[in-house]
Amino acid sequence: MSKQTDKHKALQESAGVSQVETTNQAIIAALKKRRQKKPTTQQLVSDILAGNMTALSRAITLIESTNPAHAQQANDIITACLPHANKSVRIGITGVPGVGKSTFIESFGSYLSAIGKKIAVLAIDPSSSISKGSILGDKTRMEDLVKDTNVFIRPSPSGTSLGGVARKTRETIILCEAAGFNTILIETVGVGQSETAVHSMVDFFLLLKLAGAGDELQGIKRGIIEMADSIVINKADGSNVKAAKIAKVEFNRALHLYPKKASNWQPKVMLCSALKNEGIETIWDSIHTYVMLTTKNGYFDQRRHDQNKFWLIETIKDALHSTFFNNPTIKIALQQQISLIENQKTTPFAAAEYLLGLT
Amino acid sequence: MSKQTDKHKALQESAGVSQVETTNQAIIAALKKRRQKKPTTQQLVSDILAGNMTALSRAITLIESTNPAHAQQANDIITACLPHANKSVRIGITGVPGVGKSTFIESFGSYLSAIGKKIAVLAIDPSSSISKGSILGDKTRMEDLVKDTNVFIRPSPSGTSLGGVARKTRETIILCEAAGFNTILIETVGVGQSETAVHSMVDFFLLLKLAGAGDELQGIKRGIIEMADSIVINKADGSNVKAAKIAKVEFNRALHLYPKKASNWQPKVMLCSALKNEGIETIWDSIHTYVMLTTKNGYFDQRRHDQNKFWLIETIKDALHSTFFNNPTIKIALQQQISLIENQKTTPFAAAEYLLGLT
Repeated sequence: MSKQTDKHKALQESAGVSQVETTNQAIIAALKKRRQKKPTTQQLVSDILAGNMTALSRAITLIESTNPAHAQQANDIITACLPHANKSVRIGITGVPGVGKSTFIESFGSYLSAIGKKIAVLAIDPSSSISKGSILGDKTRMEDLVKDTNVFIRPSPSGTSLGGVARKTRETIILCEAAGFNTILIETVGVGQSETAVHSMVDFFLLLKLAGAGDELQGIKRGIIEMADSIVINKADGSNVKAAKIAKVEFNRALHLYPKKASNWQPKVMLCSALKNEGIETIWDSIHTYVMLTTKNGYFDQRRHDQNKFWLIETIKDALHSTFFNNPTIKIALQQQISLIENQKTTPFAAAEYLLGLT
Repeated sequence: MSKQTDKHKALQESAGVSQVETTNQAIIAALKKRRQKKPTTQQLVSDILAGNMTALSRAITLIESTNPAHAQQANDIITACLPHANKSVRIGITGVPGVGKSTFIESFGSYLSAIGKKIAVLAIDPSSSISKGSILGDKTRMEDLVKDTNVFIRPSPSGTSLGGVARKTRETIILCEAAGFNTILIETVGVGQSETAVHSMVDFFLLLKLAGAGDELQGIKRGIIEMADSIVINKADGSNVKAAKIAKVEFNRALHLYPKKASNWQPKVMLCSALKNEGIETIWDSIHTYVMLTTKNGYFDQRRHDQNKFWLIETIKDALHSTFFNNPTIKIALQQQISLIENQKTTPFAAAEYLLGLT
């Protein structure tokens, strides 16, 4: 059917004429080169140590990445930064939504910057795995801090587990410290176990509260008060002052319910109005006194050592649990054993032995 | 050399004359038979279900044994008893040494017996692995209870770990309930994590306290108050009454610091003098009210289900941890990694990954 030798058919195409080039190839090449030029680990480390915030951000993005190659590079960067870390005061800040955490951090951070500190503001918010960076996401609430060159702000990493989020934040702390940030603020909300996670990675734990209509002490999440090194009653201004003073007395009483802390520090209750920048200096003085006390009595370093061991052991335990309980055979058998227990056919201990025997 | 045919040598012996039997062989045989006759599993179970305390004690001894054959028999007995268990109120009782726990249990137990209850008194005291049965060991402190046929008293099992001790006690509860004991008292001291263990196996948790010289609220172990369903101020007699009343007000305030419990129960503070048998009835009435409330709102059963799941998961986790951390290779490598962390050569997370890779 086809006529192979015909060279001049209607369907034959002649070569087209080249269009005149209208883009500058040199610029495109330069742009491509720039995009492809991923900074080396060594370059990132030396930039971080020089205090370069862009390099710091890039390295944190590697920490937060789920790409295994990125994880490897992140580990190398962290290891290189480690000897330059640890020279900081790490402060945890918690409080329920509405207590004014953003305003407090804005006011507190600005004060710290004014007295010459370099501040990194991080967050742990496990809920941000859905709405990424729900805390600190709205940087407009921290107008001054965002513009401050002494301040580095990073929203909460996202993650499927609190453990994962906590790990990323702990590694981020190392990089921030290596970059010269000597005051680390870690914000969290009163959700799930995030306070416990933050408490186990900071030197000082600050609980923000509001004075309410007689129910100041209601709704305190179990265990939070005893973790607090200080309770700061925010919005102690205007018509709130009287209620705030009453709340202070009550919280002081509550703090005295607990035995003396291992730090030998007696937690303090303080009033502040973040909005009016009142009481901020007193809070910092108190933290400073705490750091002096605990550095002198050895608790400061001891606590950091203990925290390292805690995270080592916790990370191992998490991995062991996750390997076991995510095993498909175990998942099915576990539900069956729970049914047997509920029907009084077996005990939790016999069921545990059976399940452990399956792996 | 030998003269085989000599029948009358000096060394030859004639058969001796039998001595007259002075012991009653029949009795010895009967005793031996009795000693050797280990009751069968089936026999023990039916005796336990019939309320036989000797059988109950024997079965508990099997639970406490470290002999694997005993463990197997114990498991069989427990499984057979399970359908008959659970019909009880389980009450945890804690308080520091000197608060008068033994006297309280004597008084409380006698009252319960008088109103027709059958009471099992158990204990969890991890320290008893050294001085076996340090709690309840001195039964002379419970003179009346010991003689009471409605009361079964068993000292704390010994064990190397709280987990092991707790497991034995939980299994003992099942047997006691199957034997018809409908009120289980579990005593513990304010040592280590034993309160948490007891709290997770009882329906109602009672904290015994003393009114002191203005420092009633000092020295409360963290988290104990929030576990308490009631706080009983003991020794509220004579010149102590005034201080006890003040303490009651303070503890009530302390209890209100915490959010409402999932049980919907508002913990109560009560006064009592166990020595003078005062206030005992009120305490029982309060527990009775609690049981009615939580049975009606479903919390009672839900909590027992949750406790079963808790022990199932905890037992598995304990086994996973123990297998990993008792591995000789891990033991050595763990110490090395901890040193590396302290010298800022690695992070807890990198160390954890390294260690997990070794198994």
